Amino acid sequence: MPNWDCDFLATLELDGRVEFGVGERDRYAADASPHDPAEPDAVVHAASTEDVSAVLAAADDRGVPVTPWGGGSGLEGSAVPVEGGVVLTTRGIDHVDPRPSDLVATVGPGVVYDDLNDRLARHGLRFAPGISSGDLATVGGMVATNASGFNAVRYGETRDHVRRLEVVLADGTVLDCGTAAVKTSSGYSLVDLFVGSEGTLGVVTEVTLGLVGVPQEKRAALTTFPDERSAAEAVAEVIRYGVRPGALEFVGPTQAELIDAYSDAADLAPKPTLVVELHGNSAAGVEADLEFVREIFDDCGMDRWTEADRGEMDGVWAARRDALPAARAHREEWDVGVVGDVVVPISAYPDIVAAVEAAAADLDLLTPCVGHAGDGNLHYTPLVDPDDAEMVARVRELNERVVTTAIEMGGTATGEHGVGIGKRSYMDREHGAAVAVMRAIKDALDPNGTLNPGKMLPPE
Amino acid sequence: MPNWDCDFLATLELDGRVEFGVGERDRYAADASPHDPAEPDAVVHAASTEDVSAVLAAADDRGVPVTPWGGGSGLEGSAVPVEGGVVLTTRGIDHVDPRPSDLVATVGPGVVYDDLNDRLARHGLRFAPGISSGDLATVGGMVATNASGFNAVRYGETRDHVRRLEVVLADGTVLDCGTAAVKTSSGYSLVDLFVGSEGTLGVVTEVTLGLVGVPQEKRAALTTFPDERSAAEAVAEVIRYGVRPGALEFVGPTQAELIDAYSDAADLAPKPTLVVELHGNSAAGVEADLEFVREIFDDCGMDRWTEADRGEMDGVWAARRDALPAARAHREEWDVGVVGDVVVPISAYPDIVAAVEAAAADLDLLTPCVGHAGDGNLHYTPLVDPDDAEMVARVRELNERVVTTAIEMGGTATGEHGVGIGKRSYMDREHGAAVAVMRAIKDALDPNGTLNPGKMLPPE
Repeated sequence: MPNWDCDFLATLELDGRVEFGVGERDRYAADASPHDPAEPDAVVHAASTEDVSAVLAAADDRGVPVTPWGGGSGLEGSAVPVEGGVVLTTRGIDHVDPRPSDLVATVGPGVVYDDLNDRLARHGLRFAPGISSGDLATVGGMVATNASGFNAVRYGETRDHVRRLEVVLADGTVLDCGTAAVKTSSGYSLVDLFVGSEGTLGVVTEVTLGLVGVPQEKRAALTTFPDERSAAEAVAEVIRYGVRPGALEFVGPTQAELIDAYSDAADLAPKPTLVVELHGNSAAGVEADLEFVREIFDDCGMDRWTEADRGEMDGVWAARRDALPAARAHREEWDVGVVGDVVVPISAYPDIVAAVEAAAADLDLLTPCVGHAGDGNLHYTPLVDPDDAEMVARVRELNERVVTTAIEMGGTATGEHGVGIGKRSYMDREHGAAVAVMRAIKDALDPNGTLNPGKMLPPE
Repeated sequence: MPNWDCDFLATLELDGRVEFGVGERDRYAADASPHDPAEPDAVVHAASTEDVSAVLAAADDRGVPVTPWGGGSGLEGSAVPVEGGVVLTTRGIDHVDPRPSDLVATVGPGVVYDDLNDRLARHGLRFAPGISSGDLATVGGMVATNASGFNAVRYGETRDHVRRLEVVLADGTVLDCGTAAVKTSSGYSLVDLFVGSEGTLGVVTEVTLGLVGVPQEKRAALTTFPDERSAAEAVAEVIRYGVRPGALEFVGPTQAELIDAYSDAADLAPKPTLVVELHGNSAAGVEADLEFVREIFDDCGMDRWTEADRGEMDGVWAARRDALPAARAHREEWDVGVVGDVVVPISAYPDIVAAVEAAAADLDLLTPCVGHAGDGNLHYTPLVDPDDAEMVARVRELNERVVTTAIEMGGTATGEHGVGIGKRSYMDREHGAAVAVMRAIKDALDPNGTLNPGKMLPPE
């Protein structure tokens, strides 16, 4: 990795600040993924759109790489500055301007997900994807990776809520894309192009989000099944019958056991577990949905159904959020080898769960699984001793088998974590000739290739 | 307009057919809009992806314009071949492959909207935007313009339902974009880029659509208000309170009178009218929503509330669909001067309705209005004698005033009809610097500019 001369940053007049110290550079070398860290040569904490524009224009002139940074909670290395240069954080651009009468809020990219929803709660409104790392993830980072989570099954992914973006291009040009209106057919949807582009096409400096009402009624149940296939089949059945739960989560038996050992927030049995939450505005409607789900689960062989009140559910969700730390805490010195994140068409959910189980057994890897099952989304985190090269190779092989299977099923290599470093090698397989079109767009918008190089698009 | 030598078409081996006759060329010279017709030099009826690829590659080699054609029901001239050359219809690519267990269907672009929903009804499923011209509009045309209609307020626009596209680029390359999975964060969303691109970036040859269940319960009411502002305020209130009606339509007093004179399907009073339909899976939930809407309407001064059964509602929707023909039938030799299609943030709906009313009065133009009000979408169709140049100028002025006002309110110049010919001149005003990015993408994907030239992007 070359060292880039970033002294030019000191000559810019910024509202924010520039850091060259080794401590700060080290802090922005790694996100929350198991990918190798890479130190930037400088860190800029932008405080305004003008800061972002000035830094990008100056870096582009000099061919210096710029890697945008949100909350650092990414799981595919999208914010790791693999080619050095500048890390540009937008955490300081964090204004929140709710407009309840239009069910929208215009916010800075640095606003943290949970903080935003705390601010919106007084209006009875919510930005709804329900991301697991909501205490860290910023709206900007969520836009960059098209993040989602628990509640996407009912409300959709980040993309479904972004109406308008202010974006700074590689050369410093500031764009306003989209509209605060709820629909439009005016021109190419640049908003949808920038959402999920992981800072490779531009840096987001403002977002207008569509909001949904906080549901007036919620009911939930914690359930277990005798085996993974019957749990996964129960998920596929619920979705096939057109129920739209607020959340429908799968926790595999290994993961349930690890969470139970790690967290006191809830009691999970070491069994295939489904957590279902129903949302609605009438108690009768939610009750009817809950009963309907219970009947389907019964038909699929469910062996435990525990309805939980709101306090208990808070515990269950806290426990579910502990899945990754619980896996990491299992053995000192070990880590998760990969944070798998495939999505398949819902009818294939039982088969993808079985594929992970089979690969884990075959390759002898302890592999906790969880998933936003209602979306057909499955996460798997094989545990590994990072110093054991042979074991690391087996983890790679597991990931290879599962991702390939998901793509063959008509699914995707990455559901909500982005491509970053870890999924680049699957882009050709998933997208074929369409990768060349993505590359043409990248070249058109970032001709010098300074924006987050080494990410998303595979080497030619 | 030059004449293009299209003899090369006769040398291609196609599954479909090529027509050079004047009758056929005339038939594909105009869509359903008031824009001037323009004759193509040839018409190709493609019957396969291979046909589309062969025609595009050959035309691109020769620099001959190709304008894709769906159902011919467009209202902004998107399919009018303004620079001549080839009209390429995809009406013959009309396979339908439903996969109910994944709530998707893979279809050819030539499938007509109502026919598709008739085919899906046996599975209890539906492609949900609810377009008015469903007896003519094809899925391909709907993808091209990101069309929507009655039911978008609850279910979203076409974009929200498109998961995967097969697209042929200008040079004949066939791409597969997107995934059958319900969510993804893998790469740039080319699906969203092609949706709404009006055939200027590629020609769609297959679409995988997400489907929704046919609602088990529906309740509806036909209501009137003493004035347009109170009706529009009632709409904004319903949305603000988080109700998600299946449909929420506004019919202005002039339009209601014209429909009543034209159609026997329903009795409409010559008053500001709202039609509301509630969808859900439990009778109790839908009943609760209906009562809630009634209370809000009452508070806004509603003077008539008539609940309608399913048979009566079919009549009301048929009457609503007659809005445009009723306007056109008002005076022989006259036409609508423009089919307005703005969307504003919902809180501005009363003001945009008032703006049309004021402009119509000021410019002395009989201007029927309807709108998918729950989306903030308003259509206005000033009546004009096309031979009266001064009157035509007044229509242009009305459109100019309303569109400019909508953009100033944070809205859009076109909600569901596309840009085509009629909204090109507003692209710079609505999108500013972002138009240059759209142009860069167009140049990257269609370097010879053969795909639907003269549309969407304004001249440089």
